[in-house]
Amino acid sequence: MVSEAVACCAPLGAPTLTEEEADATAGLFKALGDPARVRIVNLIASAGEAVCACEFNETLGLSQPTVSHHLKRLTDAGLLEREQRGKWAYFSLRREAVETLAAVADLKEVCC
Amino acid sequence: MVSEAVACCAPLGAPTLTEEEADATAGLFKALGDPARVRIVNLIASAGEAVCACEFNETLGLSQPTVSHHLKRLTDAGLLEREQRGKWAYFSLRREAVETLAAVADLKEVCC
Repeated sequence: MVSEAVACCAPLGAPTLTEEEADATAGLFKALGDPARVRIVNLIASAGEAVCACEFNETLGLSQPTVSHHLKRLTDAGLLEREQRGKWAYFSLRREAVETLAAVADLKEVCC
Repeated sequence: MVSEAVACCAPLGAPTLTEEEADATAGLFKALGDPARVRIVNLIASAGEAVCACEFNETLGLSQPTVSHHLKRLTDAGLLEREQRGKWAYFSLRREAVETLAAVADLKEVCC
């Protein structure tokens, strides 16, 4: 399920884009259309390793349920990978998602 | 105003990201977090030239007011440039926005 969400996205600059592909691409952007989720992705990218769910609420100034909600949205969108380690879940960026996101957002070849 | 919206975005993979930068970056993604807006950007990118506002409603199967709303959202986000030609407005991709979007979404250097 998760990998499909990412796999079915089509680049913004694709020659043709079906309604389904447009939905999937919009879904990926929408997952990042929130400042807290942008900061979560940024924190994980900066860390360069899996980050404990317990570390976000203090850094972001958000409650644990709010952080959990955002982590779930990002995981459902296929951007994050969740790994349970004892009591806590750890989150890392999914390589495929990172590649897809870069490809989807790249209009340079077709534009201007 | 428009160019600032794009200029103040910081890449997802930036070493540090202020709250303001996270807001701006999320705003850019949010503007693309809608299937109709993804298809509008895709149609303009595929056309390779400015597209008349009158061309979108038939292709997208949306009413003119709905199309206008989406075009305004994309223009306000700094992604599109609007040019009035007689009765109709024509829209093209803004080169700076395209470069910013690609940079913002590129996590490949910091990830995985």
